[in-house]
Amino acid sequence: MESLTVIKVGGAVVEDEASLKCLLDQFAAFEGKKVLVHGGGRSATRMAASLGIESVMIGGRRVTDAETLKVVTMVYAGLVNKNIVAQLQARGVNALGLTGADVDVIRSHKRPLKEVVTDDGSTRMVDFGFVGDVDRVDDVVLSSLVETLTRGGRNGAVVMSPLTHDGQGNLLNTNADTIASETARALAKHYDVTLTFCFEKPGVMSDPDDDDSVIPQISLSSYQTLKEQGVVSGGMLPKLDNAFEAIRQGVGRVIITHFSDIACESGTVIVEE
Amino acid sequence: MESLTVIKVGGAVVEDEASLKCLLDQFAAFEGKKVLVHGGGRSATRMAASLGIESVMIGGRRVTDAETLKVVTMVYAGLVNKNIVAQLQARGVNALGLTGADVDVIRSHKRPLKEVVTDDGSTRMVDFGFVGDVDRVDDVVLSSLVETLTRGGRNGAVVMSPLTHDGQGNLLNTNADTIASETARALAKHYDVTLTFCFEKPGVMSDPDDDDSVIPQISLSSYQTLKEQGVVSGGMLPKLDNAFEAIRQGVGRVIITHFSDIACESGTVIVEE
Repeated sequence: MESLTVIKVGGAVVEDEASLKCLLDQFAAFEGKKVLVHGGGRSATRMAASLGIESVMIGGRRVTDAETLKVVTMVYAGLVNKNIVAQLQARGVNALGLTGADVDVIRSHKRPLKEVVTDDGSTRMVDFGFVGDVDRVDDVVLSSLVETLTRGGRNGAVVMSPLTHDGQGNLLNTNADTIASETARALAKHYDVTLTFCFEKPGVMSDPDDDDSVIPQISLSSYQTLKEQGVVSGGMLPKLDNAFEAIRQGVGRVIITHFSDIACESGTVIVEE
Repeated sequence: MESLTVIKVGGAVVEDEASLKCLLDQFAAFEGKKVLVHGGGRSATRMAASLGIESVMIGGRRVTDAETLKVVTMVYAGLVNKNIVAQLQARGVNALGLTGADVDVIRSHKRPLKEVVTDDGSTRMVDFGFVGDVDRVDDVVLSSLVETLTRGGRNGAVVMSPLTHDGQGNLLNTNADTIASETARALAKHYDVTLTFCFEKPGVMSDPDDDDSVIPQISLSSYQTLKEQGVVSGGMLPKLDNAFEAIRQGVGRVIITHFSDIACESGTVIVEE
């Protein structure tokens, strides 16, 4: 199968002009079929604050009431997505920005009340509001868009914002990591997919204070050892669990790397065995 | 040639929930190939006010500084466009929302300083800021999207927001009527195009206070007579001049009608002769 790379870039990179420029320069130069998935949470929090709307986060996820949904729709689908698209066009990339509602590409349902472990260790039932849990990514429509944008060897890319829809007319706020994983899984039916998470760290590190301690490769068996030895812990565990889940569901490999290194010369490659 | 209708709907319709529902119900039921172009100026003005940004209008056009450009990008490409797309999907329309930057579909250049006649009759040079004057609509890309969305007789539509880009990475605010006219002109190379302007009036009226006085058809020769008799005047003149210009450039007919009547059973049809 032909290769395709899904690159996820978080809000911290997206909203810093120099970091975004660095990321987009590399993304434009990256050869082969590619999809960019972006966040934008920090910009949304700031925009909400400017409008006098308090941002409520529980377990790292945004509680999305009707007013907050308007803000994330404006920031993710408008400000962030369209600026990325325009800047990619300036770099010769035939970019098309989408939400999950466009061509019905990602359908979701409103998250039901959910038990969440809070910071103090207690559990409570939380209504996250207009937050979508993904039901399906339309792999046929998405792969057909990828082919259209890259026809004749053209440099082209779909740019996904973290919004989905329920098919009843409602947009729903959806975690960008989830969009990236689900998109990668769906495209794995058509391509040999690499899923790359770009952030501000150089990869999975054995010593969080030492940028030179990046672990170049983690397999499912070495992951067990790293966990037992306590080398990886905390916030990295859910990321790695998600990575192995994506691999289990057909994604070829997952890369965790610095946003200046999307070709992954120095990040961590996560493979099945 | 096959028929295609470009329907332009203004901000006053878009931002009133009942009016928008009425328009989208009809748009979904409208048979044949179709493109929806929307405004959103009133919502942008309100959002700007909420953010403490003053909206400056000169000659009916928004002066768009850097902060205002962010607001219109959020409101037009995010809030308005994606809600329309989600609501069309709920009505079974395979909708795809675009700005001019997406797939490079509308390229423009930043408007140079322009001489404007102000309300008091004097002229002054105005810098409209990040406002785009359209250079070209990519008729090949746009018609190919129309065909893709409607393949196999499917109900589908492109939904255009009034933003373009300069190819240098900058989004530019562009009048929605202009987007509609330029889109209609470009698509006239591939289809027999009807350009329909939907607003809150039933059409061009011989008596502005009598909704029953709609003139059913205006040709270039009857337009001259209507102008000489003073039957049409004021704000309707530039609309009609633009309509005849669109027809001169290949659009089959222009319709001016109420937003509840996009099939135009009671509006004004503008034809060449």
